Amino acid sequence: MKCKQCQFFYKFASKYNFTMKNDLFLRAAKGEKVERTPVWLMRQAGRILPQYRALRERLSGFIELVKTPELAAEVTLQPVNLLGVDAAIIFSDILVIPEAMGLPYLMEEKKGPIFPKTIKNWQDMEQLKIADAESDLGYVLEAIKITKKELNGRVPLIGFAGAPFTIFTYMVEGAGSKTFSKARKMMYEDPALAHKLLQKITDSTINYLKMQVLAGADLIQIFDSWAGILPPEQYTEFGTFYIDQICKAIQNVPKTIFAKGAFFARKELAQLDCQVIGLDWNMDITESRQIIGENRTLQGNLDPCVLYASFETIRKETRKMLQLFGNQRHIANLGHGVYPDTDPEKVKCFIETVKEF
Amino acid sequence: MKCKQCQFFYKFASKYNFTMKNDLFLRAAKGEKVERTPVWLMRQAGRILPQYRALRERLSGFIELVKTPELAAEVTLQPVNLLGVDAAIIFSDILVIPEAMGLPYLMEEKKGPIFPKTIKNWQDMEQLKIADAESDLGYVLEAIKITKKELNGRVPLIGFAGAPFTIFTYMVEGAGSKTFSKARKMMYEDPALAHKLLQKITDSTINYLKMQVLAGADLIQIFDSWAGILPPEQYTEFGTFYIDQICKAIQNVPKTIFAKGAFFARKELAQLDCQVIGLDWNMDITESRQIIGENRTLQGNLDPCVLYASFETIRKETRKMLQLFGNQRHIANLGHGVYPDTDPEKVKCFIETVKEF
Repeated sequence: MKCKQCQFFYKFASKYNFTMKNDLFLRAAKGEKVERTPVWLMRQAGRILPQYRALRERLSGFIELVKTPELAAEVTLQPVNLLGVDAAIIFSDILVIPEAMGLPYLMEEKKGPIFPKTIKNWQDMEQLKIADAESDLGYVLEAIKITKKELNGRVPLIGFAGAPFTIFTYMVEGAGSKTFSKARKMMYEDPALAHKLLQKITDSTINYLKMQVLAGADLIQIFDSWAGILPPEQYTEFGTFYIDQICKAIQNVPKTIFAKGAFFARKELAQLDCQVIGLDWNMDITESRQIIGENRTLQGNLDPCVLYASFETIRKETRKMLQLFGNQRHIANLGHGVYPDTDPEKVKCFIETVKEF
Repeated sequence: MKCKQCQFFYKFASKYNFTMKNDLFLRAAKGEKVERTPVWLMRQAGRILPQYRALRERLSGFIELVKTPELAAEVTLQPVNLLGVDAAIIFSDILVIPEAMGLPYLMEEKKGPIFPKTIKNWQDMEQLKIADAESDLGYVLEAIKITKKELNGRVPLIGFAGAPFTIFTYMVEGAGSKTFSKARKMMYEDPALAHKLLQKITDSTINYLKMQVLAGADLIQIFDSWAGILPPEQYTEFGTFYIDQICKAIQNVPKTIFAKGAFFARKELAQLDCQVIGLDWNMDITESRQIIGENRTLQGNLDPCVLYASFETIRKETRKMLQLFGNQRHIANLGHGVYPDTDPEKVKCFIETVKEF
């Protein structure tokens, strides 16, 4: 960030929103008064929409889409145009960070991400570089800029990154796993190596998120998808410690932490410099509010499987959730990313129920 | 249970133990005073032991082993003889219940169980029968009898079954899953069908567990492996409700409930007619004791990944766990089944650390 203009924009990033037509999402995130609860869905960009699938079919694969800014922007806008959500989230993948650090991945259809090379020892770790967002992740920043222009202030744009622990797990494990034996083994057998790798990921992520904010992201969400595999004490040491660094480094925009499965860490996460805490559908709403306190906005947490049910059930369950959260300091969402086989009409029903409540 | 002698034995089953040489496990389960904390491992029978693998290689597959009482008994005894655990658990599978109800499964190497046919509608469900333990599951009962004879009172024998919700999930889903969409969909779209199926599973399980006790099982453990995928309220309705029926139906032996991931249900499970509550490694020990109260024995909960670490770390982490649980009303175990790639020497180190504490 050498450019003076950049520094100026960065400083005043939060003030860009003066032309935002629908800023419900941002106001709710900041704890300001809202007329109604804003709503969006994790994984809304892609997967469920036939328009997304049509676009995907023209391409060689998922990663091509991630790396083509115009197309990533198009996919980002689809749910805003077609579903009427109150926020857009940039279409990308949390695994662009390992790739930018020198560890590329492949996305195998129906299997998920695979890393041909993984981090096994100090030498592997030392070969990784700290990602430079402008040169290594320019395609995401470009997608954000295009999206912001196309959105033209209709709704805010969410930028995001994986939490360092989740990224670490992929880099060591090489893929999703039932037990995460390799990543967990390293944490017990060579904690110093695990920490060194986590720090490199954290530094890369901070660079990346700072540039996302500069490019126009209005809020930053950290996804800790695998948080739930750790014992509480280990999560403090290997998880929260690094999220805390990110929260402190990213300023001028609100921040959301979503640590799936980390019911045991709710109190701890609520102490961080962030505005929003995401809840998964296992977390009791009233209990979570009590643990987290009144000074954070809660995001979530409808069971994604409710969207398999009838329209009537969706309306009933959504209203029940809204009632429990109350009408302030809440951003309606599912408790997990929307599942790929969900009917878009059911998603619309969820969104409309929130809007009409 | 028509036979008078059976009824007599059943009534006095808990008194069989007068010849038990090492009854630490049973005394701890019942909340009686123990000189030291007893220890065993979930999934100790099989997987990690080279002696188990050698036996497996001679057979066509996992299911053949489950269905051959002499061999199932042999595998059950291996960890008692080789590792020195304080309890044996009968070598079997939770999926023998669907099979006994008319829904057979296959075990695919490295992939896990697959059901060629699944339950999709009322007609499928109506075709299922309620399992009769003697005629449909005689091979398990036979394995229990052989094991009891071979054990000759050295340590108690644990019988087990899957919790109805976990069995239901397999029967509807047909395999393990990331999202369990089919099973979850049925719960929302046709809850009456889900309940009808759950009741049939429950009735079958009660028949099965009663006969396990008659055959000689000294304690019964209920495994609810997928409990953690449900929102709290749904777990009360579709999970606990059926476990409660089982707890009430099985008398004269202590009962253990292990509902993995159901941190939100600890209070509720502790109200059931059971003596032991299993904790996974995400559950804080002190907090769990507070939630569950003093009148239940806790079982668990070392992170299974600790056994990937050095002997020194294993000893340190095991001692830390023992300290937190205290020396009464605790059965030492992992917080999950031991992972297949664990070194048996590390397992021994865990067991010995508990014994020496």
